[in-house]
Amino acid sequence: MYRTHTCGELRVENIGTKVTLSGWLQKNRDLGGMTFIDLRDRYGITQIAFNMETNAELCTQARKLGREFVIQVTGEVAERYSKNKKIPTGEIEIIATDLKVLSKSEVPPFTIEDQTDGGEDILMKYRYLDLRRNPRQQALMLRHKMSIAVRNYLDKQGFIDVETPVLIKSTPEGARDFVVPSRMNEGNFYALPQSPQVFKQLLMVAGYDRYYQIVKCFRDEDLRADRQPEFTQIDCEMAFVEQEDILNTFEGMAKHIFKMFKNVDFNEPFKRMPFSEAMAKYGSDKPDLRFGMEINNLTEISKGKNFKIFDDAEYIGGICAVNVVDKFSRKAIDKLTDFVKKPQIGAQGLVWIKYDADGTFKSSIDKFFGAEDLQQIAQKFDAKPNDIIFLISGNYDKSLKILGDLRLELAKELNLIDNNKFAPLWVVDFPLVEWNEETNRFHAMHHPFTSPKPQDISMLETEPAKVRANAYDFVVNGVELGGGSIRIHDSEVQRKMFDTLGFTPEEAQNQFGFLMNAFKYGAPPHGGIAYGLDRWVAMFNNSESIKDVIAFPKNNSGKDVMIDSPSPVSKEQLDELKLLIKKD
Amino acid sequence: MYRTHTCGELRVENIGTKVTLSGWLQKNRDLGGMTFIDLRDRYGITQIAFNMETNAELCTQARKLGREFVIQVTGEVAERYSKNKKIPTGEIEIIATDLKVLSKSEVPPFTIEDQTDGGEDILMKYRYLDLRRNPRQQALMLRHKMSIAVRNYLDKQGFIDVETPVLIKSTPEGARDFVVPSRMNEGNFYALPQSPQVFKQLLMVAGYDRYYQIVKCFRDEDLRADRQPEFTQIDCEMAFVEQEDILNTFEGMAKHIFKMFKNVDFNEPFKRMPFSEAMAKYGSDKPDLRFGMEINNLTEISKGKNFKIFDDAEYIGGICAVNVVDKFSRKAIDKLTDFVKKPQIGAQGLVWIKYDADGTFKSSIDKFFGAEDLQQIAQKFDAKPNDIIFLISGNYDKSLKILGDLRLELAKELNLIDNNKFAPLWVVDFPLVEWNEETNRFHAMHHPFTSPKPQDISMLETEPAKVRANAYDFVVNGVELGGGSIRIHDSEVQRKMFDTLGFTPEEAQNQFGFLMNAFKYGAPPHGGIAYGLDRWVAMFNNSESIKDVIAFPKNNSGKDVMIDSPSPVSKEQLDELKLLIKKD
Repeated sequence: MYRTHTCGELRVENIGTKVTLSGWLQKNRDLGGMTFIDLRDRYGITQIAFNMETNAELCTQARKLGREFVIQVTGEVAERYSKNKKIPTGEIEIIATDLKVLSKSEVPPFTIEDQTDGGEDILMKYRYLDLRRNPRQQALMLRHKMSIAVRNYLDKQGFIDVETPVLIKSTPEGARDFVVPSRMNEGNFYALPQSPQVFKQLLMVAGYDRYYQIVKCFRDEDLRADRQPEFTQIDCEMAFVEQEDILNTFEGMAKHIFKMFKNVDFNEPFKRMPFSEAMAKYGSDKPDLRFGMEINNLTEISKGKNFKIFDDAEYIGGICAVNVVDKFSRKAIDKLTDFVKKPQIGAQGLVWIKYDADGTFKSSIDKFFGAEDLQQIAQKFDAKPNDIIFLISGNYDKSLKILGDLRLELAKELNLIDNNKFAPLWVVDFPLVEWNEETNRFHAMHHPFTSPKPQDISMLETEPAKVRANAYDFVVNGVELGGGSIRIHDSEVQRKMFDTLGFTPEEAQNQFGFLMNAFKYGAPPHGGIAYGLDRWVAMFNNSESIKDVIAFPKNNSGKDVMIDSPSPVSKEQLDELKLLIKKD
Repeated sequence: MYRTHTCGELRVENIGTKVTLSGWLQKNRDLGGMTFIDLRDRYGITQIAFNMETNAELCTQARKLGREFVIQVTGEVAERYSKNKKIPTGEIEIIATDLKVLSKSEVPPFTIEDQTDGGEDILMKYRYLDLRRNPRQQALMLRHKMSIAVRNYLDKQGFIDVETPVLIKSTPEGARDFVVPSRMNEGNFYALPQSPQVFKQLLMVAGYDRYYQIVKCFRDEDLRADRQPEFTQIDCEMAFVEQEDILNTFEGMAKHIFKMFKNVDFNEPFKRMPFSEAMAKYGSDKPDLRFGMEINNLTEISKGKNFKIFDDAEYIGGICAVNVVDKFSRKAIDKLTDFVKKPQIGAQGLVWIKYDADGTFKSSIDKFFGAEDLQQIAQKFDAKPNDIIFLISGNYDKSLKILGDLRLELAKELNLIDNNKFAPLWVVDFPLVEWNEETNRFHAMHHPFTSPKPQDISMLETEPAKVRANAYDFVVNGVELGGGSIRIHDSEVQRKMFDTLGFTPEEAQNQFGFLMNAFKYGAPPHGGIAYGLDRWVAMFNNSESIKDVIAFPKNNSGKDVMIDSPSPVSKEQLDELKLLIKKD
């Protein structure tokens, strides 16, 4: 038996008890007559006292122990002379009578403290040591608690957890698949699922009515800050439902989790906003509603002033920063201009209008816009003296996205975001398809099984771009925490959809024949949602990156630097798989 | 809104209520004046009544509906004239006033009944229809309930659910890995985990103390009846524990599940048996203890009778079938002899001794064994008249395995197995390593991280085959439901173990360097277990095969015939991965 108690549980009630604890040495303080060790495990820290006078041998032994040694200590619980109010065990200590080193430790490459001195690379390489730190343990504990809360909530709502396969089939739609060569079926490959989409739909066809799964999904994408090649979804599907049923069910779940983990009560229904409005007002399909600064369309009132750039533009729009004239020197505006001109933002320039304290206007377009013109624009925003209006013009979609990025940048710079606020939102009425310049065809905005709105189906063959989908995203504070749709359950509509997406009937049959066949045998109306578990936990953990809430994440090159993976495999393995690696 | 109630919830209390139900048409009975439809969903079956007199149009419409159509019906709940006591909704029916076909169905390729007329192949191809059948839904529902019960039990015991990565690193030890080519790291591969073994050990090094995960594992093996390329483990690990702590913890969990799902109380501790005893008495490391018929070692008393086969044998052993003389004609014994001589069993022959009703012996070795010799053998078994003793001789291990197989075959044939009985058993003290003839080296019996028994460590370098491990399997009714071990937590012992297994220090460092490095920074004593979820559910579901408790299993060639996977991928995909397929 290695311990009678954990390092987190002893209290004054235990004084006088003989106990054995095991754990890691957090700190070793030699005060001459006494040596104190802080012993740490997952449950807490307990102080161990060694007395030079009463037990010189043991005390001498204790002094030699280094950080992160694993030790076992036996002794008696005693009241502490100087109490530590900061930790739950702070009123007691253990007067050690026995000491055993279970495992030595070299000096760790960084300190195991809440604020460590290790850099990103070294922390990733020694992830098992990084994971010893409090913030990491708290994040993973939160993740565990959230998972089990979600499961129990869904279980109570009648959802069944059904495991769908990981070795499935590669499909050309969507992101790039990870593939797995099959040894038993030469030249053939499995693929790892980007989501259990078709399987959960088949479960609805099979009559399971309410399905969920907390499930790993895989995408072989070039990684950005907040992406991982493997990530975890709370994947759900329901039969005999309309969009409203799904939104209500998962709004209920969201409220339950917010209450449980953040003690936030949402007494009102979550706001809903059509995609078109989100784009027009916030330049984003995941607007952050913790602050205002909405976009105004200025196209009509800004044309015809002989300013060629505006006159040629499809769209002119702007946002108004309130009471900031003194914050935006010429230099500060130049910096903002540089921001919008960055390639990933993509603006040609930035027009500004200052509403000075004295009621006059200054602007970068004074040459073309008189005071009255500028006043008219200011009125659109209900602007006051000391406000600045920023304008972007050009293509409709692109200009709005730039304004959306500018809005976020300004909010950050001006400290407009309340970090204790949660602003949930359903974005609805997404377009069904979007044109892809590269492949020169329409792509499904969500996925090819998304149902068009019944009233828009007639446009599917004539004006696909105008067809709205029964699709929805759940957004909190500008982060997309999930999304889903009502699915097509009619094989005729599904066929039309594949046609719109440029699949030949043969390709459609080859890739998704089993789903279309399934629809021939009585498919119920159905729909679902997938919430991103990593993102939910990251948000509740106040983490910038989902890496912080994943035990063993990969780096931005898709590598696990701790285990050194991916790595070469043996020639025998490749031979068995009948594979050759092509040399350049 | 598609329904006000499910097809399983209406009762006499609801009589008079206007309701809307949706579901699948299970049965359509046209009785002339009345048409009755059984409407089915996951929750049950409700009878819908259409009356030709009061609503001829609707009734005519209803008559045309075929099996598995998805329909929506509105009407009033009424008391049934002839009640059906077999189903919970059997006292009521719905008098239909509205009917809508939500989705038509072609005639399904087999009947959606508890006993279907579909063969294995067609059921697999149309799995989504097979899954509509009651036995399948009950199996998956049981699986869901067992999963969530396990999670809540482990959560209460302080275990944390930590997700470990699926894209890991290929290791040559153990079964064959599935590998995943990395596009971002040319020529390199991830591997899918055979188990999260090293990650759960790293979590112990990281101080997580108690970990669990219900997790998919992968093995690229040639498939036998009860194997799948992907399967699910209840994977657990604990720190600061000895073998006894783990056995007690997971015995507690097993008892909890048995009570919850089978209403079985185990008031006694589970039996424990050393591996050597299991082999000697039952010829198996997973003995079925629901019946006796133990093996007796007859080597000593059966030698020296001038029977060359026995005299040359390393081992002679037998089992005694009780009161069966009349069941074993010469022909029946020949059949049994054929059984043991099958290549997968591998005996050279079968010796038998009949203890006839009149107290005399007949045997296939009468030429060498007199009545007294046979009596002596019979005494070993405490045999009575009408018993038959079967003997096998040869190599020690092989003969015992044959006797073990024979014991099971006899029990089946003689109907000795009580299917309502559960006989749990811990098999302990496994050998640490076993000699592999093919590779001409020792292989780890469990895996290379298994701890030798401390008292046996000294033999690790001299007589590895004699070293016993702190390893254990959990066996119920002859099925291995799980297994685990105490792990090595000392990098020196780990190094010795790799040495015993024939790894060069470079190979060990290359494959498992991160684990051995981790052990340098304070590794706690730790150990764990993995219970096979598929097998647990199959046992509780009385299923022969784990396929019955997996939603979308693969067939014995590793194929999913429903989605037609594995399948070829495009040349573009292979090019991106820098792979070529070798043609023979």
